[in-house]
Amino acid sequence: MAKAITPRQEDYSRWYTDVVTQSHMADYSPVKGCMVIRPLGYAVWEAMQRELDARFRATGHQNAYFPLFIPESFLHREAAHVEGFAPELAVVTHGGGKKLEEPLVVRPTSETIIYEMYSKWIRSYRDLPLLINQWANVVRWEMRTRLFLRTTEFLWQEGHTAHATEAEAEEEVLKILEIYRSFAEEWMAMPVYTGRKTESEKFAGALRTYSIEALMQDGRALQAGTSHNLGQNFSKVFDVKYQTAAGDWEHCWQTSWGVSTRLVGALVMSHADDNGVSFPPRLAPTQVVIVPIWKSDDQKARIAEAVKRAEAELAPVCRVRADLRDEMSPGWKFNEWELKGVPLRLEIGPRDLDAGQFTAVRRLDRRKSAVPLADVARAVPALLAEIQSDMLEARRTALRDSTHDVRDYASFKKGLDETGGFFRAHFCGDRDCEASIKDETKATIRCVPLSGNQEEGQCLRCNGASHQWVYFARAY
Amino acid sequence: MAKAITPRQEDYSRWYTDVVTQSHMADYSPVKGCMVIRPLGYAVWEAMQRELDARFRATGHQNAYFPLFIPESFLHREAAHVEGFAPELAVVTHGGGKKLEEPLVVRPTSETIIYEMYSKWIRSYRDLPLLINQWANVVRWEMRTRLFLRTTEFLWQEGHTAHATEAEAEEEVLKILEIYRSFAEEWMAMPVYTGRKTESEKFAGALRTYSIEALMQDGRALQAGTSHNLGQNFSKVFDVKYQTAAGDWEHCWQTSWGVSTRLVGALVMSHADDNGVSFPPRLAPTQVVIVPIWKSDDQKARIAEAVKRAEAELAPVCRVRADLRDEMSPGWKFNEWELKGVPLRLEIGPRDLDAGQFTAVRRLDRRKSAVPLADVARAVPALLAEIQSDMLEARRTALRDSTHDVRDYASFKKGLDETGGFFRAHFCGDRDCEASIKDETKATIRCVPLSGNQEEGQCLRCNGASHQWVYFARAY
Repeated sequence: MAKAITPRQEDYSRWYTDVVTQSHMADYSPVKGCMVIRPLGYAVWEAMQRELDARFRATGHQNAYFPLFIPESFLHREAAHVEGFAPELAVVTHGGGKKLEEPLVVRPTSETIIYEMYSKWIRSYRDLPLLINQWANVVRWEMRTRLFLRTTEFLWQEGHTAHATEAEAEEEVLKILEIYRSFAEEWMAMPVYTGRKTESEKFAGALRTYSIEALMQDGRALQAGTSHNLGQNFSKVFDVKYQTAAGDWEHCWQTSWGVSTRLVGALVMSHADDNGVSFPPRLAPTQVVIVPIWKSDDQKARIAEAVKRAEAELAPVCRVRADLRDEMSPGWKFNEWELKGVPLRLEIGPRDLDAGQFTAVRRLDRRKSAVPLADVARAVPALLAEIQSDMLEARRTALRDSTHDVRDYASFKKGLDETGGFFRAHFCGDRDCEASIKDETKATIRCVPLSGNQEEGQCLRCNGASHQWVYFARAY
Repeated sequence: MAKAITPRQEDYSRWYTDVVTQSHMADYSPVKGCMVIRPLGYAVWEAMQRELDARFRATGHQNAYFPLFIPESFLHREAAHVEGFAPELAVVTHGGGKKLEEPLVVRPTSETIIYEMYSKWIRSYRDLPLLINQWANVVRWEMRTRLFLRTTEFLWQEGHTAHATEAEAEEEVLKILEIYRSFAEEWMAMPVYTGRKTESEKFAGALRTYSIEALMQDGRALQAGTSHNLGQNFSKVFDVKYQTAAGDWEHCWQTSWGVSTRLVGALVMSHADDNGVSFPPRLAPTQVVIVPIWKSDDQKARIAEAVKRAEAELAPVCRVRADLRDEMSPGWKFNEWELKGVPLRLEIGPRDLDAGQFTAVRRLDRRKSAVPLADVARAVPALLAEIQSDMLEARRTALRDSTHDVRDYASFKKGLDETGGFFRAHFCGDRDCEASIKDETKATIRCVPLSGNQEEGQCLRCNGASHQWVYFARAY
């Protein structure tokens, strides 16, 4: 077994690292800021990919692949874009033993190289909308990294679409935001706030950025996905044009959107505890582990038979694993599978066998129930569905309990230090006022809700007139 | 419609590029040597990935992800390895606006970074075998590139395993070779020769390399997958050790193996013709296209109804698409879907409708047959299976017809120039003799068969004693 996990209460940051490394989800690599995603962590990412990919396809998107390298000059074409990314670039200066004439940037995001291609491919309104997604690795040189949450290289998907009208682009951006929101809730059991980013928090080069914002167990917010309406900012500099039915040439309206392996970190920080990670059933690489308990060889033979039969019955309906290893004790196995986040454990000892049942134990809360041997293929999927829903409910309660209405700056600052969480507060809309709040409290506006937040009030900090409240939080 | 495709007979190389670009499988990018894989080409790669991934999992392998960047010093640890890859490296010298203390190499392959991690992870015989695969992008600075077949950046899978004994490593390497061979034949409809590489053709750092070798339509060979027994070469320099049950420390025996997006190019070169690409049904993103033919609005309504009904019936059993676009003629659509390689077309005009049938046309040979409307969901999968098998048979015949027994050097050189293909010829085993043949003919030993080639003879070139024949060819 691994070393003990540092308790959350003692040191949240070390707890997180312990959980991720000791569960074998990921490890540090010899390359500064780059992680190794081990099979358990990668299987979770693959499960996320499968579901998101199906949702992107169902909404008409196709996958493609664009080059890792981008000529440095491309990034300079869109002024805000290069300003946002220049400090984070990794640059290839030599190839094949020679100095390159123009340095190549390792993609931090692919708007520029993709839209250069779009300008070749798009000719007519018949070519629109162009709906493409890419699964890829990207590199942003980060000073302070954290496994999954912030790494120099990470894996992600980046959608890039081109439309004939502004309205279609806006519809696309909100459609994707809803895919991210519902995926986070239904699959990750992670409720989120959704909304628009302020001007100072939006993507470098976007007209508007929307995001989903989740709550971590230490009270910090985490931006878990973003969807950008790029307007015509890029289509104008990359000359992405189409001819209308009437024969005029217009610049396309574009969007880009992405989620990354950061979601795996968000999943851990949402559900893990001092015993290890804890996966919601829909994303759990192993959903059920069966652990036999025997003391004599005679017991062993009978129990092993029941275990194998249940495994065979469960295999078609869930991801099951029977742990029949001889050299470890049942208690060791319980710990091992709790550490690795398996949502449901089926125990079976001599008394269970005599009673014709398994004892089912939920990873979420160790709540036990009896599952008749004969009923296992029906009862286990039902238990998994219940766990999925209970995990979401638990996080919904946590999010509700950690979201505070606040009217004055002093209580806001006190709340940030004492409880953390999200703060619903009035904001005047002034950029300098926003910057001061960030300087003074390290909290930022996570998002401006899309509806339901319109009311008259006074700005949290300057007491100026405010027509809406927004979500503030300290964030990862 | 796209421009005309250059005929194969006129210029094979231009034909290939035309086919790939005009079918929209791929495009050139503004970055030298790097390609853009467009949705059609990427969908083929994804279909390959799905099947290969399932086969790797079924044989106990797990996916993981390792960093894109490798410290330059790592590559230098294994002498043959660095010698093999040094001329092809892309080097990152700057990150986050600063010059790096140690340059980072963009992975050309990941043995070194992965085995550095294995040396941390492997402790006991209980940790073995360690069977990991990675789907990733890699970069090798290439001077002369060709879409899919040889690009500076490409996508691939690289398996990396560690075993307790030499025998287990050898078993793994041959198991993977068999996965590659059967995948190439059963899914790509591409028969291959399998065998061992000679010392001068093996992987930089391997003990032994095995490969599958396919025949392209211009008579050249293409190495389509490799499986390397690394022996203890890397485990000794990266200190990958395990403790045996008896308590001794031993170095692991390792393997690595891979196939890449080169397979997509091999698929095109195996089956495409002057009308475009042609996919075997198992890998075709669209397997069946239904094209209606009407002249009046009255016909249109009745035919469109039959098309939609057939599409709905086919959707659960194959990848079908109904092309009901009004603005293109049936002939235009026939060309379009032939260009894009759809293996089966169902046409339906007024006479077909009156006869209660579709006219089915195979992309492979335009052979026609009638499919009763009521029978479409049964008949189409059967036709697809037949096409898959006929495509393999056609390529088997081509491979057989293009494989020549040759006894003397003059006939060999003549054959290389006149027909191309594979040449079964005796070889003495001498490295200098092999090098001379390569210099003099541009042909290389593609592989040494694993069995059935043992016989006494005289070396093709030097007339020295030879105990086996091998496969020679000019290769991509």
